[in-house]
Amino acid sequence: MNVAVPSTSPKPHFSQVAIIGVGLIGGSFALALKAAGACDTVVGVGRDRANLDVALSRGIIDRVASSIEEAVAQSDLVLVATPVAQFAHVFSSIARALSPQTLVTDAGSTKRDVVRAARLAFGAQIGRFIPSHPIAGAEHSGAAAARADLYVSRRVVISALEENAAADVARVEAAWRVCGARIGHMRAEEHDAVFAAVSHLPHVLAFGLVEEFSTRADAARLFGYAAGGFRDFTRIASSHPEMWRDICLANRDAISAELTRFGQTVAALQALVAAGDGAALEARFHAAREARNRWLAGDFDASTD
Amino acid sequence: MNVAVPSTSPKPHFSQVAIIGVGLIGGSFALALKAAGACDTVVGVGRDRANLDVALSRGIIDRVASSIEEAVAQSDLVLVATPVAQFAHVFSSIARALSPQTLVTDAGSTKRDVVRAARLAFGAQIGRFIPSHPIAGAEHSGAAAARADLYVSRRVVISALEENAAADVARVEAAWRVCGARIGHMRAEEHDAVFAAVSHLPHVLAFGLVEEFSTRADAARLFGYAAGGFRDFTRIASSHPEMWRDICLANRDAISAELTRFGQTVAALQALVAAGDGAALEARFHAAREARNRWLAGDFDASTD
Repeated sequence: MNVAVPSTSPKPHFSQVAIIGVGLIGGSFALALKAAGACDTVVGVGRDRANLDVALSRGIIDRVASSIEEAVAQSDLVLVATPVAQFAHVFSSIARALSPQTLVTDAGSTKRDVVRAARLAFGAQIGRFIPSHPIAGAEHSGAAAARADLYVSRRVVISALEENAAADVARVEAAWRVCGARIGHMRAEEHDAVFAAVSHLPHVLAFGLVEEFSTRADAARLFGYAAGGFRDFTRIASSHPEMWRDICLANRDAISAELTRFGQTVAALQALVAAGDGAALEARFHAAREARNRWLAGDFDASTD
Repeated sequence: MNVAVPSTSPKPHFSQVAIIGVGLIGGSFALALKAAGACDTVVGVGRDRANLDVALSRGIIDRVASSIEEAVAQSDLVLVATPVAQFAHVFSSIARALSPQTLVTDAGSTKRDVVRAARLAFGAQIGRFIPSHPIAGAEHSGAAAARADLYVSRRVVISALEENAAADVARVEAAWRVCGARIGHMRAEEHDAVFAAVSHLPHVLAFGLVEEFSTRADAARLFGYAAGGFRDFTRIASSHPEMWRDICLANRDAISAELTRFGQTVAALQALVAAGDGAALEARFHAAREARNRWLAGDFDASTD
């Protein structure tokens, strides 16, 4: 993992920023840039007029563009923050208005599929697209939930392409940095493998556990006695079903591999429990607690590989 | 599930209560009984003198008994709240001092093994032992963490034995009720099956996931990008390794069966992801979210079976 040293370069400035999809992610990016004085104007595009009105009234965006093309034409930075399922369509619209002065980035949770869609839409202009993934929770959504400090101390992964100019990558990174984010770098393939493990796998497992319990004859009794440990373990099973369906489809090979691997872990644990191998179980539990406590203490935060 | 209607019987009163193991669980029981004016004196027994001194200075116990036998001899209620691994020894000591005026209960997380140990120790006096399991978290431990409101609105499962007199069961239930707890009833076998699913399984899975990640070559990068979803999913992997080893050993058949069953769930999810079956995945994720939201809304709280 490469974690860039905080930049000492001057603060970036954008005359106009276009936000395609003004929800928690897009709206918070706009608020943070404005709070930092890093842009003059923000234009928003979206399919939900009521949400755009909230964004206008909260000062997240200065005006609503009539189309993606219109929003992009006069902007020097474009953030695509719609659901990933809409990216192919959004990228095609952006491509029609893309000038050499415009940089495009995104907030998608997966990167290989986003890069594939971007290459199809942008063709020879693919260098204008710098893929990014801000690691910020989404328990609440919409412009109403946006806030200027959402990205403070959060990770943003930049999956730069070979076609990207270094200065353009630096400019997108600088935009995230003025929002307070810490930048990490991973190729799209590495990104998707890492997040299949640390994010996608736990989500699928939590969904799967709750769904399986709900189908049992004694489901009411099970849930009736479920307590705090269950509540935290399954919190992510209250996530957005369509979003997670799309992530599973976009990253299916990596998530499938993680599920196969975890199935082997479950089988190994089952064998230890069935055999009553207390020493081996205790050793695993100890190692888990120690690793987690090191993680909580920040031991893995600045490590490189 | 049987959830008893709140009792309208008069408040119970105990002249002396003995707490064997004055930690979070035992100490909070003592504080709650005292706060309710439900006992005259509390005596404590424990192996950690510094912890007993904290309990004395906080008014959790009124005096330290020199032995379990001495504590039990003059008490009309005894709570065993040590680690379950010590129960056999503690029960033997209690049995030597047990009078027909004394009721014994416990706070063990598993019930079949506790009942087995109690039958061995108490023999013909087994009717004096009313097994219970307060469902209260243990993130902090020791007398310093005890508090009078720990059991308010928490579930306490009573696994009554055929040998218990109804009046004795009612008296132990009343003690938990004045602490603010809600009483549920399950036979020891039912208890262990339910908690294997809703508590023991998630703990073993969380430990297993974190431990497996920690063994990978890219562990530092994985933990470096783990975020809020991972933190909550794995919170219970910071639980006490020895306690969870003992639970796995005490409830091995039920936990082993749950692990086998969850292994099948993981295999089914893996097949859906590998096949790119978005509709089936979305349906499962929706069902999970809906079940969890109903649970959070309290829909399963008063249900019976």
